[in-house]
Amino acid sequence: MKLKLGFVQTNPSFGNKEKNVEEAINLSRKIGGDLMVFPELFNTGYAFISKKEIDYLAEEVPDGYTTIKLMEHSREANKTIVAGLAERFNDKIFNSAVVVSNGQFIGVYRKVHLFYKEKLWFSVGNIGFRVFDLGHFKLGVMICFDWFFPESARVLALEGADVIAHPSNLVLPGLCQKAMLIRSLENKVFIITANRTGTEFRGGERFNYIGRSQITSPSMKVLASAEEDEVIAKVVDVDISEARDKNITKFNHAIQDRKVEFYGKLVMP
Amino acid sequence: MKLKLGFVQTNPSFGNKEKNVEEAINLSRKIGGDLMVFPELFNTGYAFISKKEIDYLAEEVPDGYTTIKLMEHSREANKTIVAGLAERFNDKIFNSAVVVSNGQFIGVYRKVHLFYKEKLWFSVGNIGFRVFDLGHFKLGVMICFDWFFPESARVLALEGADVIAHPSNLVLPGLCQKAMLIRSLENKVFIITANRTGTEFRGGERFNYIGRSQITSPSMKVLASAEEDEVIAKVVDVDISEARDKNITKFNHAIQDRKVEFYGKLVMP
Repeated sequence: MKLKLGFVQTNPSFGNKEKNVEEAINLSRKIGGDLMVFPELFNTGYAFISKKEIDYLAEEVPDGYTTIKLMEHSREANKTIVAGLAERFNDKIFNSAVVVSNGQFIGVYRKVHLFYKEKLWFSVGNIGFRVFDLGHFKLGVMICFDWFFPESARVLALEGADVIAHPSNLVLPGLCQKAMLIRSLENKVFIITANRTGTEFRGGERFNYIGRSQITSPSMKVLASAEEDEVIAKVVDVDISEARDKNITKFNHAIQDRKVEFYGKLVMP
Repeated sequence: MKLKLGFVQTNPSFGNKEKNVEEAINLSRKIGGDLMVFPELFNTGYAFISKKEIDYLAEEVPDGYTTIKLMEHSREANKTIVAGLAERFNDKIFNSAVVVSNGQFIGVYRKVHLFYKEKLWFSVGNIGFRVFDLGHFKLGVMICFDWFFPESARVLALEGADVIAHPSNLVLPGLCQKAMLIRSLENKVFIITANRTGTEFRGGERFNYIGRSQITSPSMKVLASAEEDEVIAKVVDVDISEARDKNITKFNHAIQDRKVEFYGKLVMP
């Protein structure tokens, strides 16, 4: 099964939702693709400085402005989109990513591993790691700092993900991009890291986003990547069957060779 | 706590145990170091072609020739050594690594994830991943292909390892060395990959060992490395406290930020 995987790398203007959403959708519309991944919090920007501010900018899912716009675009373009936004759910705010496909709302992932001051604004994701069956392929979602923990991509691969969408707002230079190559290899999956670019200076702190969005393959190749400062979309053709062949040698298999009887420590509190 | 970590990279001559052991010990003796790691199966070579052959070359631990020689050297040099060998235990043969320190036998690790035809010669390690408390630091051991599975280094880190000794006979170019940088970062541990060099052509198959032994740090630095074809020992000074500081930011901790309630899939059969 051939698929066009892609990312949109934008430079969101803080709080300017309509502009940010339009810019990302325009890039996506121009480039096409079957699965497009947008950055984390692509509609609002990242550097919140108060609970009040985030409460104002967060949205219901799927009934909020951004998800509706994404559904419309996914219907007209006949594609799947994964995009990060602040989600209001009951009395909580989550750092979430919505999955929409061909006009339908498919589901939401709520970030499990919160980075830095996100711990002040967001609740820890309450639904864990989920894989969405899109018919032609299975899609896992993780967000930004989830990369640091090998468990994130591993759980998604064990749940059957062929492709992992990874909306991000990376600030630590170079680390994640190298790690995702290893996550792709060890799990034999495609990974799309859609990062943002630009700088935010808010609340006395500066965030320099490192761009360099990338798509990596099960054989540890970088299939596409962006520069640090570009606002750009890219797509690449892949064959999903590459992620379904988990053989390493004729004696070795990336998943079946796992020895779970010795992994108990991984789930001890 | 300052420690000198090191590796010995050799080119074992198949079946020539006395020569191989002497060569590795000589390199270790000359360079010093507090913890020295030797390659996987450093005393026998790697490319076994029959059960009979491996049964002949395997040794009891700690009463076999090689472990006794290593204990003698560790006493005279006042150091700890981790070295790979084929271990006979009851009616089984394991691809093991012994740990000896200051003349004492400390323990053994039996390789959990067997590579390629090792599955024909060796039994899967039956004791899982263990960490040895050496007073000044805690030592985890994994062997070669264990690198592919993020669970190996992760379990060792969760068991408290500051340093992971990684005797290897790597043949897949470049992959492991990049992965170990990420394993060091995500677990905030030092890792010593002691690889062999040279070529073995046995039973109609050629194995090209890729050398490039390396020592990596919790901050994802390569502290020391060897070339592909060198027979060499290297040591580097480290401060073990670097592996005990698991903070990433003032809000984030490499271990405490794990969300084990969402990792259950990792241990499902």
